[in-house]
Amino acid sequence: MSAREDAQRRYDAKTKPRGSLGRLEELGCRIAEIRGFVPSSLRSVIVVAAADHGVAREGVSAYPSAVTAQMVANFEAGGAAINVLARRAGAELRIVDAGVGRGTANMLQTPAMTPDEVAKALADGEALAAELDADVVGLGEMGIGNTTSAAALTAALLGLVPELVCGRGTGLDDEGILRKIDVVRRAVALHAGEDPLTALGGFEIAFLAGLVIGCARRRVVVLLDGFIAAAAALAASSIEPAVRDVLIASHRSPEPGHTYLLEALGLEPLLDLGLRLGEGSGAALALPLLQASIAILDEMATFEQAGVTDAGR
Amino acid sequence: MSAREDAQRRYDAKTKPRGSLGRLEELGCRIAEIRGFVPSSLRSVIVVAAADHGVAREGVSAYPSAVTAQMVANFEAGGAAINVLARRAGAELRIVDAGVGRGTANMLQTPAMTPDEVAKALADGEALAAELDADVVGLGEMGIGNTTSAAALTAALLGLVPELVCGRGTGLDDEGILRKIDVVRRAVALHAGEDPLTALGGFEIAFLAGLVIGCARRRVVVLLDGFIAAAAALAASSIEPAVRDVLIASHRSPEPGHTYLLEALGLEPLLDLGLRLGEGSGAALALPLLQASIAILDEMATFEQAGVTDAGR
Repeated sequence: MSAREDAQRRYDAKTKPRGSLGRLEELGCRIAEIRGFVPSSLRSVIVVAAADHGVAREGVSAYPSAVTAQMVANFEAGGAAINVLARRAGAELRIVDAGVGRGTANMLQTPAMTPDEVAKALADGEALAAELDADVVGLGEMGIGNTTSAAALTAALLGLVPELVCGRGTGLDDEGILRKIDVVRRAVALHAGEDPLTALGGFEIAFLAGLVIGCARRRVVVLLDGFIAAAAALAASSIEPAVRDVLIASHRSPEPGHTYLLEALGLEPLLDLGLRLGEGSGAALALPLLQASIAILDEMATFEQAGVTDAGR
Repeated sequence: MSAREDAQRRYDAKTKPRGSLGRLEELGCRIAEIRGFVPSSLRSVIVVAAADHGVAREGVSAYPSAVTAQMVANFEAGGAAINVLARRAGAELRIVDAGVGRGTANMLQTPAMTPDEVAKALADGEALAAELDADVVGLGEMGIGNTTSAAALTAALLGLVPELVCGRGTGLDDEGILRKIDVVRRAVALHAGEDPLTALGGFEIAFLAGLVIGCARRRVVVLLDGFIAAAAALAASSIEPAVRDVLIASHRSPEPGHTYLLEALGLEPLLDLGLRLGEGSGAALALPLLQASIAILDEMATFEQAGVTDAGR
C-alpha cells in the first residue's frame, strides 16, 4: 500500500462522511505521497531569500532598491508580515541574503548573472535543503525589481508575450507597467537562445530554484508562495523535471503571470485572497491548512473507536 | 475616525505595499467595523448545535438518525473533526444539545416545530450569545436530515425551486437526491404561507438563528460554516435584518443551496475547498485567516518604526 493509499484509508475510517473534507483530504494524501509516509505532524520552515536586481535601475518598481536591505533588516528584527505570519503558523523562519546590495547585472545590458553565479546560487539553495530538517519548506522572497525578473523568466520559459505576464508588482501605475512590459520585451529579445535563469533571473530566484531541487531530492513538500516563487519552481523544473512532484501552491496572486505558471506546473492553489506581498506570506497563510489535513489523520477518532454507525462503508 | 478607518490606517502604515495583503486587510477592517474597535487578538468560540429531524424518516440522508447522538458523544469525547480543527485554531468548542433524540416533527405531516418550540430555541441561542465572552463565534451544527431542512428553508425564504437547493448532503446517491427534492417540494407546498423557520426548520437551526441575533446585538463577529449555518443566518436576518452586518462567510460548500444563500446574504467566502462536513469545520479552518488579519495589525512594524522607505505614502 502506498503512503497516499494509507492516508486515504485513514481518512475513510474517520468519523465523517467519506470525502467530506474535500480538498483537505486530497492535501493530506498529497503530503503523504510526497513524504513517502503519513507524517504525524509537519515540521515547517519558511525560507525568505533576498537579493537585488540590476533591472531595478530601469524604473520597473514603485520602490527604490534600498528597500530590499531595509526589509531584510526588518525581517531580522521581527517586524515584517512574514515574521507575524510564520510565528502564527508555527513555522521556523530562515532569512537568506542571496545577493542584497550587490545585486544582479542589468538584464538590458548583459545577462543578469554569470554561469558561475547561477551555479553557486543553485548549490547554496540545495545545501540549505540538505541542512533543514523539515517536512514542509515554504518559499519566500524579497527583492525590489524581482517581479520584472520573474515576468521575463515566465515569458521566456513559457513563450508568452510580456503583456500577459507583467503586473503592478508592489504598486506600479499604468505608465510604470508599460515601461515594465517594454523592459521585459527587450530583455527577452536580447537574450533569446541563452539560458533564461542566467540571463533573466535573480540571485534569490536561483537560490530558491536550488532549494526546490534539494527539497525534491529529499521528498520534502515545497509550499510555493506567489509569482516569484512559482517562477523559481518552473526554472527548477526546467533543470530537474521531477521537482513538480513535491510542489503545493498556497495561493493565487493577482500578478497575471502567476496563473500561467500555476497552469504550467499543473497546480491548483489553496487560497485566492488577492495577496501580492511575497515574503512567503501566502505560504504562511496556507500552512495551517496543511497542518490541519495532517492533524485530522493523527487525532480524529475512527468509526470503530467512537462507536459511530458507518453508513458509507 | 471609525474603527474600520482606524484598521485601514494601521494597515497602511505597516511595512508592506499598500493593500498588498488583499482580502486579509479587508477582513481585518471588517472585524474592526463589526466589533467597533480594533481588537488585539480574537477570543474565538465555535458553537456546535445538534438536533434530530423528523424528516429523516423520509429517507433523505445516507445516515440513520442515531448518528446524531453518536456524533454528539464523539464531540464530547474529543474525537470528531471539529475537536481537532477547533483545537488547532485555538478556539473554544461548545456543544449544544438543541434537540437530539427528541427531534422535530416530520415536516411532511405537520410544521416541524410549534411556535413555542421555535421561540424557546431562538431564546436559548440568544442566551448563549449573552453568556459567551467572544470576539468571534463560529457556527457549527450536527443533525441527520438537516440539509433537507436547510434546503426547504432556502427554497421557501428565497423562492427557489427545490432542484436548485438540494445536494448530496452527507452522501446521497442519485435516487436519494430525487427523493429529497420531492420531499422539499411537498413540504414547501404544504406549509406555504406559514413561518418558514417554524414549519421547515430544525431545533439546531433555530438555536443558531437565535445565537446569530444575540451576537449581532453585541457586535460579535459571526463566522458562518456551510449550508446549514447560512440557512440559520438567513432565517435570523428575516427576523432581524441587522444581523447581516456581523456575518463573515468561512467557505463555499458544494451544496448547491449554499451559493444562493451566500448571494442573498451578500457574502464572499474565504475558502473554497469542497468541504461538506458541517460541525463548524469550515469556520475552524478559516479562523486562522481572521486571527492573522488581526495579528498583522497588532504585531507588524510600521515604516517609521522599521526605518523602511515608504514609496506609497
